[in-house]
Amino acid sequence: MIRSNSLKYQQNGAGFSPAALYASHKNLVEAEIQRFVPEGYPVSLYQPIRYALTAGGKRIRPVLVLLATEAVGGTTARALPAAVAMELLHTFTLIHDDIIDRADLRRGHPTIHVKWNTNTALLAGDALIALAYKSLLKTATPRLPEIASVFTKALSEVCEGQASDTEFEERMRVSFDDYISMISKKTGAFIVASLWIGALIGNGSDDEIAALRRYGEALGRAFQLQDDLLDITGSETSLGKPVGADLLEGKKTAPLIMALKRACGKEKDLLQSIVRRGKAYPREISRVKRLYEKLGVLKDIQHIIDESVREANSELLFLHESNARRTLRWLAETLARRTC
Amino acid sequence: MIRSNSLKYQQNGAGFSPAALYASHKNLVEAEIQRFVPEGYPVSLYQPIRYALTAGGKRIRPVLVLLATEAVGGTTARALPAAVAMELLHTFTLIHDDIIDRADLRRGHPTIHVKWNTNTALLAGDALIALAYKSLLKTATPRLPEIASVFTKALSEVCEGQASDTEFEERMRVSFDDYISMISKKTGAFIVASLWIGALIGNGSDDEIAALRRYGEALGRAFQLQDDLLDITGSETSLGKPVGADLLEGKKTAPLIMALKRACGKEKDLLQSIVRRGKAYPREISRVKRLYEKLGVLKDIQHIIDESVREANSELLFLHESNARRTLRWLAETLARRTC
Repeated sequence: MIRSNSLKYQQNGAGFSPAALYASHKNLVEAEIQRFVPEGYPVSLYQPIRYALTAGGKRIRPVLVLLATEAVGGTTARALPAAVAMELLHTFTLIHDDIIDRADLRRGHPTIHVKWNTNTALLAGDALIALAYKSLLKTATPRLPEIASVFTKALSEVCEGQASDTEFEERMRVSFDDYISMISKKTGAFIVASLWIGALIGNGSDDEIAALRRYGEALGRAFQLQDDLLDITGSETSLGKPVGADLLEGKKTAPLIMALKRACGKEKDLLQSIVRRGKAYPREISRVKRLYEKLGVLKDIQHIIDESVREANSELLFLHESNARRTLRWLAETLARRTC
Repeated sequence: MIRSNSLKYQQNGAGFSPAALYASHKNLVEAEIQRFVPEGYPVSLYQPIRYALTAGGKRIRPVLVLLATEAVGGTTARALPAAVAMELLHTFTLIHDDIIDRADLRRGHPTIHVKWNTNTALLAGDALIALAYKSLLKTATPRLPEIASVFTKALSEVCEGQASDTEFEERMRVSFDDYISMISKKTGAFIVASLWIGALIGNGSDDEIAALRRYGEALGRAFQLQDDLLDITGSETSLGKPVGADLLEGKKTAPLIMALKRACGKEKDLLQSIVRRGKAYPREISRVKRLYEKLGVLKDIQHIIDESVREANSELLFLHESNARRTLRWLAETLARRTC
């Protein structure tokens, strides 16, 4: 197993590869997940849990925990249980969200409620919350109560974000501010918590912690808006799902909300009819995309993403330079430029 | 609000009413739940949560937390957030279990997935876990990491117990030992955790904590077995559901498991056909009840309940005499003699 320490000699940054540090941290996380998650009984509980945890994924949140710890001068070993805890909690949300969205596939594999059944998926998600806390509580630090509170606040916010998202689906009008506030909980809360918890484990100063939290808020926003853009600008090959999948399901994403506000006449009618019927027809997708372009929606959301990345990276200036900080900077730029 | 301290003058037990202490502790819990649980947004999340929390209930688990704290010399005020946390966690299991069991009614009211929908119930349950930890983490004690671990272990065990219960439904043969082991998780874990956490908050000695945990194990067993008995020996009026409801749903309760092992010939055929088809017909209920009586199943389970209550109460001898201890003793006897 590659330990991140092996990369420490490159503290001046020359020849340093953020991608390699990310990959080695991801490996640490994978190994700890394998070690930590039970294989035993009841089989109907732990088999789907292991299935969900080995389906791949970027492991962004746990790697953020490790990087935040290192960025304030701590060691990854101490942060690993909390890193795994964030990934377990994230996996819980995927399983329950897939039930809520009636999604059949996740990362190319059948979802748990499809491969087993809804009750199994429900219970696997619940048990993952317990496993997540169990891993978190292994963290050796006097700041554990504070860390557990941050973790709990994030869990609460993700539930609130998901509930708001569902409420938005049934509303005709959602403002862009409401949308940003919803995604700051649904997507942002775990990203912020990962950085916050990492910084607490590394015993960062209040300024360092605050900077990493703000970095996380900006990163989470950029990440979700990029997701929304990719739905319409990406290709079916790279996304692994049809272009406009969100639109087909009638999801109120950032481009749709912005376009609804700007459009007039027949163009507005088109968008409103999609919202009203709760889904777009496949033949409407390319027309909506052209409309987005005409209204400047894609360009303006790209601008918000670029600004968010800039904002995220400016927060990193409050930290000492380190390979962890370099990797956080690289990560913000990479996530905002991803094509899938 | 009546504070338990007002009952302290009765330390010699003369004229002391355990029922009154129980009621006053229950009132403390009700008030704290009202105070703690948000009324705000998103409405689709907090409205069903408040609905579930105000539907009544005996509040056994939170009262056990308070009594355990007092029984080792602590004060209820410090234990109240943890007491509420146990009730919130219990309420989460009710909401998700009702989804799993497709139950339409809970305490005479429509269940959340019926009154709203399954997604709302799913999310309300998830958010209750977060609220439960939030309340728990308010506890002012240096033993908080230990308390959070006990709480998490209980959550994990309840999920395992529920998964085993579901597995049992699909198996032809379940041993009585397997059944006891399942209910010790599904029903017992939260009762044990309530006492354990209460004892930790009261800063009890290791012996006191161990005694209260064993009291909880015996109490939980007695409580669930009594539930199983009442299904067949109770009346529709007092239970608020038809006699033999568990049998009608094909649930493998203690009497059925014991009877399956003892019956022969046509009697065994009857029981096995109920298990095979996963439900009993209403006309079979009285025949099964007579069979249970003939096989001595009801008598023997009552004997196990009585023994469990004796065992629970013998553990209380490791504690100093107090009104809390008196109430714990009364509680074990009352729960095992309840008729609904």
